[in-house]
Amino acid sequence: MKKLNVDVAIIGTGTAGMSAYREARKYTNSIALVEGNTYGTTCARVGCMPSKLLIAAADAAFHSQHAGGFGIENTHTVINDELVMQRVRAERDRFVGFVLDSVEEFEPSHLIKGYAKFIDDRHLIIENHTEITAGRSIIATGSRPRIPDILSKAGNRLLMNDDIFELKKLPKSLAVFGIGVIGLELDQALSRLGVSVKIFGRSGGLAGIKDSEILHYAEKSFNTEFYLDTNARVLDVVESGNHVEIKYIHKTEGEIRENFDFILAATGRKPNLDSLDLHKAGLKVDAKNVPVFDRLTMQTSAEHIFIAGDVNNDLALLHEAADEGKIAGHNAALFPNTTEAKRRAPLGIVFTDPQIAFVGERPSEPSELTVTGKVSFENQGRSRVMLKNKGLLKVYADRQTAQFTGAEIFGPAAEHMAHLLAWSVQSRVTVAEMLEMPFYHPVVEEGLRTALRDLAAQLDKKNSSHAA
Amino acid sequence: MKKLNVDVAIIGTGTAGMSAYREARKYTNSIALVEGNTYGTTCARVGCMPSKLLIAAADAAFHSQHAGGFGIENTHTVINDELVMQRVRAERDRFVGFVLDSVEEFEPSHLIKGYAKFIDDRHLIIENHTEITAGRSIIATGSRPRIPDILSKAGNRLLMNDDIFELKKLPKSLAVFGIGVIGLELDQALSRLGVSVKIFGRSGGLAGIKDSEILHYAEKSFNTEFYLDTNARVLDVVESGNHVEIKYIHKTEGEIRENFDFILAATGRKPNLDSLDLHKAGLKVDAKNVPVFDRLTMQTSAEHIFIAGDVNNDLALLHEAADEGKIAGHNAALFPNTTEAKRRAPLGIVFTDPQIAFVGERPSEPSELTVTGKVSFENQGRSRVMLKNKGLLKVYADRQTAQFTGAEIFGPAAEHMAHLLAWSVQSRVTVAEMLEMPFYHPVVEEGLRTALRDLAAQLDKKNSSHAA
Repeated sequence: MKKLNVDVAIIGTGTAGMSAYREARKYTNSIALVEGNTYGTTCARVGCMPSKLLIAAADAAFHSQHAGGFGIENTHTVINDELVMQRVRAERDRFVGFVLDSVEEFEPSHLIKGYAKFIDDRHLIIENHTEITAGRSIIATGSRPRIPDILSKAGNRLLMNDDIFELKKLPKSLAVFGIGVIGLELDQALSRLGVSVKIFGRSGGLAGIKDSEILHYAEKSFNTEFYLDTNARVLDVVESGNHVEIKYIHKTEGEIRENFDFILAATGRKPNLDSLDLHKAGLKVDAKNVPVFDRLTMQTSAEHIFIAGDVNNDLALLHEAADEGKIAGHNAALFPNTTEAKRRAPLGIVFTDPQIAFVGERPSEPSELTVTGKVSFENQGRSRVMLKNKGLLKVYADRQTAQFTGAEIFGPAAEHMAHLLAWSVQSRVTVAEMLEMPFYHPVVEEGLRTALRDLAAQLDKKNSSHAA
Repeated sequence: MKKLNVDVAIIGTGTAGMSAYREARKYTNSIALVEGNTYGTTCARVGCMPSKLLIAAADAAFHSQHAGGFGIENTHTVINDELVMQRVRAERDRFVGFVLDSVEEFEPSHLIKGYAKFIDDRHLIIENHTEITAGRSIIATGSRPRIPDILSKAGNRLLMNDDIFELKKLPKSLAVFGIGVIGLELDQALSRLGVSVKIFGRSGGLAGIKDSEILHYAEKSFNTEFYLDTNARVLDVVESGNHVEIKYIHKTEGEIRENFDFILAATGRKPNLDSLDLHKAGLKVDAKNVPVFDRLTMQTSAEHIFIAGDVNNDLALLHEAADEGKIAGHNAALFPNTTEAKRRAPLGIVFTDPQIAFVGERPSEPSELTVTGKVSFENQGRSRVMLKNKGLLKVYADRQTAQFTGAEIFGPAAEHMAHLLAWSVQSRVTVAEMLEMPFYHPVVEEGLRTALRDLAAQLDKKNSSHAA
């Protein structure tokens, strides 16, 4: 058994772990970077990048088939799914390659291969070969798909979202379980690539949408493309030869049995915490058994143990994981001189069509403190020019301060407007100040301006009625 | 001869005139709104809207033909140009309809039909039927295409950009004169719709690009799609039967004669000032015979005469014309209690592919005061995913204050990033503050972040070398 004594042990080499490593290394050379599995990130391997590649192909198919609205007639569109998947994998491998290149630049003596377990809050054991005494530890072990029990009966017919990208040909039919971000993105992409898709949710929710009007609008919109039930009642799942049979209550046809080539489990992810022997480190955990932590310092209840990235079950987003890794790396290296970092304004994007986006604070229900403005994109000029005139956008402001506080978007160019709005939230500007900014013509952002004008009018109304 | 005495006379009912009318009417009911031609705006009739409709069809054609890169094979794409142009006109007429609807809401007694001429600085005569004594006047007569002499020989084969939208079928070949915004947008759109297009510029410029590296990059990029000469030497133009012959120095083949179905004149626009008898109002004019004016009040040298919109030859952009009309309307109505308005951060967008955009202040040449950061989109992740990885972006900051001052973009999603950047210019944020803002993943805005990081590094370098 090799023995090591380091300032900082980092467990995991995904986005958060690598970011922590780069930052910590600015201050110390006494680091152990521990990886049990393959180097690289969820994002590049099975997350953001391959899904966006699949979506790009799906968009190309959809727009080819819908070019007729402009006078462009594609009389024969062939979705060559083998080529589609080849490009997805080739480009994904290229992105993974960049991540691996950056591992190459790491100091080889820092890299320890193997799964880590805590012995106590200062000691880690790496499989059967290395014991590490660590002044500070950073847990950055990421997450993995969570599979509900009912799906285990699907046997070989069960795919994780990771598996989708390895398919050489696309299946004829697919049942997607879970209407989170990943489920919905993959579902629509595969549907547009010719797969007959049904999607089954459980919670009544849809990819994190909070506003009930937007939720209803989006649900209706997606249902024009494929069967989507946000409150599905699935009675049984049985693997049977080269397909899987699902017994469920169909929204209009009642109880039916239906065969699918595969089931895709997109039922959420869970933190990779279970094999760390975390209890030996004595960390306080929440109801879901995830260590509680301070999001400004990334410290757990043990101030020398940090937790960053998807594993902390807070914001499973690449840009947040990178920030969290950097904060943890900084504070672990300079411990006990830790500092509270500034976090960025909340921003989430779902790359469906129309896109969904979340910015800042969104009220769960109407509140006295929050004022709401809205716009429909159905008559928005530029959106209509591009045949993208579908969607609904709501913007929120604080009634007292008239400060812009957040937005929820289902609509065209949402990924871009969400940046404009997230930057506005972070800059703490008022709605009036936003309306003084330039809006070009003709752009989708003019729709946003309509919503902001509505918000300004609501603010005026509320304030004058309050004064009266 | 009818005699009228009004607080405010507004000459022209385009974007600026209508905006001036709506604002002035909040304060006075004594208004004459004079129109000699048809009601409505350049934007809706022949500008922004129909060009974006043509571009939307061109994009649909281009993406259908280039979907193969994603594995989507359109083996038979038909550009049905009659249908394309039908949609352009139908949608354009719909947008014009909205403008005319708003005229319907104007007070009928305010509307005077006819061309106006100044008798002196307080009196206007409207053709042979009405004499107006006006406390204040607003000139908002817009602009019209400027045709260089050499093109007059093209006779019936000469089209203005206005004419393009009236074509029932597209020509086989077209020579475009002028590489301004309109020329370049229409040229690329028509090229993508199957017209064999050549574009001839004179000044060496390209749609207003200032940075020589971006200019060169854009020129090369457009040249892969169609013949483009920014410094064309055209020797002669002759109408000849059902075509027009152009004698010119070809960039590689030397002097040649070539036949085209039509010539499109996109050689800029000139203010509609010549029939106003402006000299009788005694206004000071600049070298181009356009009245000098204050852009914060819209007042000319006669403080009770205002000039707003394209006619003042400053910023021929819809959102600026609307602002100028509003400022002029406000100050004309409340005269002599005029106020200086806040103008918005400069923002210009060219809807080519890749798009071109301008934000804030752009240095004409490298300067000690300005620091530059840049990024190429060729390896930008999301851009590559979408096969849009082409372009170059430069961002500028003030060396002393580290404040972000402007940008020039040739690249994907430029229209959206330009809004993000224009809002940042107007908010007077520093480059460091911009880098604290959220950038999602994977988005084109991450390319912008790379440029901003480069800018921040240049600022650090310059500042430390200055200190040393």
